Amino acid sequence: MNLSFETVTSFTHGGSGLPAVAVAGAADDAVLGAVDAGLAAGIGFFLVGNNDEILKTAGKHGLNLGDAVIVDSKNSDEAAICRIAAGLCAEGKAGVLMKGLVGTASFTRAILDKEIGLTEKGSLLSHIGFFAGIGNGKAFLITDAAINILPDVEAKKKILGNAVGAARALGILEPKIALLAPVEKISSKIQSTVDAAELKSWLNGGALGNVVADGPFALDVAASREAARIKGLNSPVAGDVDIYFLPNLDAGNVLYKSLTVFSGASSAGILSGAKVPVVLTSRSDTEEVKIASLGLALQIASSKG
Amino acid sequence: MNLSFETVTSFTHGGSGLPAVAVAGAADDAVLGAVDAGLAAGIGFFLVGNNDEILKTAGKHGLNLGDAVIVDSKNSDEAAICRIAAGLCAEGKAGVLMKGLVGTASFTRAILDKEIGLTEKGSLLSHIGFFAGIGNGKAFLITDAAINILPDVEAKKKILGNAVGAARALGILEPKIALLAPVEKISSKIQSTVDAAELKSWLNGGALGNVVADGPFALDVAASREAARIKGLNSPVAGDVDIYFLPNLDAGNVLYKSLTVFSGASSAGILSGAKVPVVLTSRSDTEEVKIASLGLALQIASSKG
Repeated sequence: MNLSFETVTSFTHGGSGLPAVAVAGAADDAVLGAVDAGLAAGIGFFLVGNNDEILKTAGKHGLNLGDAVIVDSKNSDEAAICRIAAGLCAEGKAGVLMKGLVGTASFTRAILDKEIGLTEKGSLLSHIGFFAGIGNGKAFLITDAAINILPDVEAKKKILGNAVGAARALGILEPKIALLAPVEKISSKIQSTVDAAELKSWLNGGALGNVVADGPFALDVAASREAARIKGLNSPVAGDVDIYFLPNLDAGNVLYKSLTVFSGASSAGILSGAKVPVVLTSRSDTEEVKIASLGLALQIASSKG
Repeated sequence: MNLSFETVTSFTHGGSGLPAVAVAGAADDAVLGAVDAGLAAGIGFFLVGNNDEILKTAGKHGLNLGDAVIVDSKNSDEAAICRIAAGLCAEGKAGVLMKGLVGTASFTRAILDKEIGLTEKGSLLSHIGFFAGIGNGKAFLITDAAINILPDVEAKKKILGNAVGAARALGILEPKIALLAPVEKISSKIQSTVDAAELKSWLNGGALGNVVADGPFALDVAASREAARIKGLNSPVAGDVDIYFLPNLDAGNVLYKSLTVFSGASSAGILSGAKVPVVLTSRSDTEEVKIASLGLALQIASSKG
């Protein structure tokens, strides 16, 4: 994935062609930085929430809301705010959904609400992390670090579908996928190795179009062609990974966090699986991560055009 | 853990007081570097295997075996070689067991063989990784990255016991333990959070003596006091971890590999749970890791004295 972090996550070079963003619960200090950066770049915003509270919060930070459209929810009912924002995306008025000052449960419920129609039948929400500037410098995606706890093979296929879609939206037409496990040998005692073998066949059989998948691979074998060579593995994926696929949340989360905490990597993350990319900021995310995640979502949304 | 990597893993300042090492299958290119470094530092070695093959392999590398004792296995039966080496440790003649050119299965079988007596009833083998020079620079242990696939709570207690014992042998009398999971909130859907809560009570109740345990913690909260603060957690463990405890092999292995591959960290690893520390070299480990792992094992073995 020969993409720089800035290419993918920056939207400061102009918002023409980029979709609008619907923010659920915009009276939120945490998302204001990202909204501010987006407005400066000409991104359109629907700021959903209580009109007075949004203006008050913006005022507190000296933020001029400019051309942003405030969608007054009148009352402060979280569920209603989330449904309005999700609805704007389902109707095609906004191309990115962003979480503000609302509970994650209400937010997710609106995304999955059949009447709103932001998710198609059979789809699955999953988290996609984007990293660049570590290891050999190639950018890559990691999934799933935040949503699916112990996905079975069918769920894993959907998670992979979401990630491959994101990679293609970023211009990687034939993504290379490493199916991670603790070892390379398939063992019935280690479910991740069994699943990796099945997913490898499924992927290389063309289920998601042109991809190159390999595994089960321990992370060192996936990340380093030299480590693979020493273990006698000759794989086009080893050392050239576009998508690291993790077997479960325990493993996905710890890899994601390890890269952000111990590698000084720049990261961004979105939720995929709905009709539009979703930005879910966490309190412990830095401002940089929040803005980069919005940029990643906009990039993916605009490519889907 | 205010220990430098070199303090813990270097034995080049003299072998007086350090125990001897029994190598199972010494006719092995891969362990020769470590044996060479050990001999130069005055470490005693029992090199178990076929006498002629050991001498031939040493000669190929221009290695003078000096004071090393060759224990001729006569035939090349792997199982016999492993039993001899394990026996030397069980008898107290050697204080560290090292794997050479023998299969991991035969090697492990000898360690667990009741007649040889290298493991006590109720003990559990587990892997302990040692890292230094990343993050805030503090050294720390990681467990289990290599052996136990899906340990239940009872197995996790033994894995923690092994790690606390190793920390104490390294001079950390009251180790701080982070019980890792993907989130801080205890959820019945995420087994790692449930187990972490139980283990926290067990540890802080004094089951392993003086320790300070906290969790469930995602890795960023454990590694960074600032991340913990933002999430409203005030923990003496956050940002000051001696032992990162991982819930299962998928997560443990990916963190271990992430640190070695993406963080440029110096690492060493041993198996704990037998009466002596065990060094298990992997083909894809660098020479530096093999030597450091032997150093770590010697340090732990000598402290147990």
